[in-house]
Amino acid sequence: MYGTPRDTAAFDTHYSEKHIPLAKKVLGVRGYEVSNGPVATPAGPSNYHLVAVLQFGDMAAIQKAFGSPEGQAALADVQTLATGGVDILMFDTREA
Amino acid sequence: MYGTPRDTAAFDTHYSEKHIPLAKKVLGVRGYEVSNGPVATPAGPSNYHLVAVLQFGDMAAIQKAFGSPEGQAALADVQTLATGGVDILMFDTREA
Repeated sequence: MYGTPRDTAAFDTHYSEKHIPLAKKVLGVRGYEVSNGPVATPAGPSNYHLVAVLQFGDMAAIQKAFGSPEGQAALADVQTLATGGVDILMFDTREA
Repeated sequence: MYGTPRDTAAFDTHYSEKHIPLAKKVLGVRGYEVSNGPVATPAGPSNYHLVAVLQFGDMAAIQKAFGSPEGQAALADVQTLATGGVDILMFDTREA
């Protein structure tokens, strides 16, 4: 979840043209969705500019991905991108 | 995204036994997943106890759901549940 960056147009170009291709090279990514348009809350706009949801087989696969050269490259790019900060949450899921 | 509640055991029971059935009654819910186990960050534990991901057809369907009696009942229950606070984000998605 990316906080609103200093330059949203530069962020969007960087995200689409550089970050998505880098993230898609990371082994174990089974699904990858991004927010399309504003990220809202029930009370109005949120402080987030973009939310990315990446799916892996399990928590161990995330750890493995983060440790790989491709994962390290993608994470390094996140730090460059995230001029408005970034909050990363990792969790297993089950059907409710 | 529910912040860690005052009583996690009471939260878990309430969430499973009362909230999930209430949320499932809301018209337009196409998918409903919850975190299973801890919600982590790359630096360690997060401040969140549980993340719920509900999918609707589009943003208009969310607005409609929130306005319905079933949606209002589910939202009222969220307020009772969320003794540790709750952050709700709403956004359209696209494949990356």
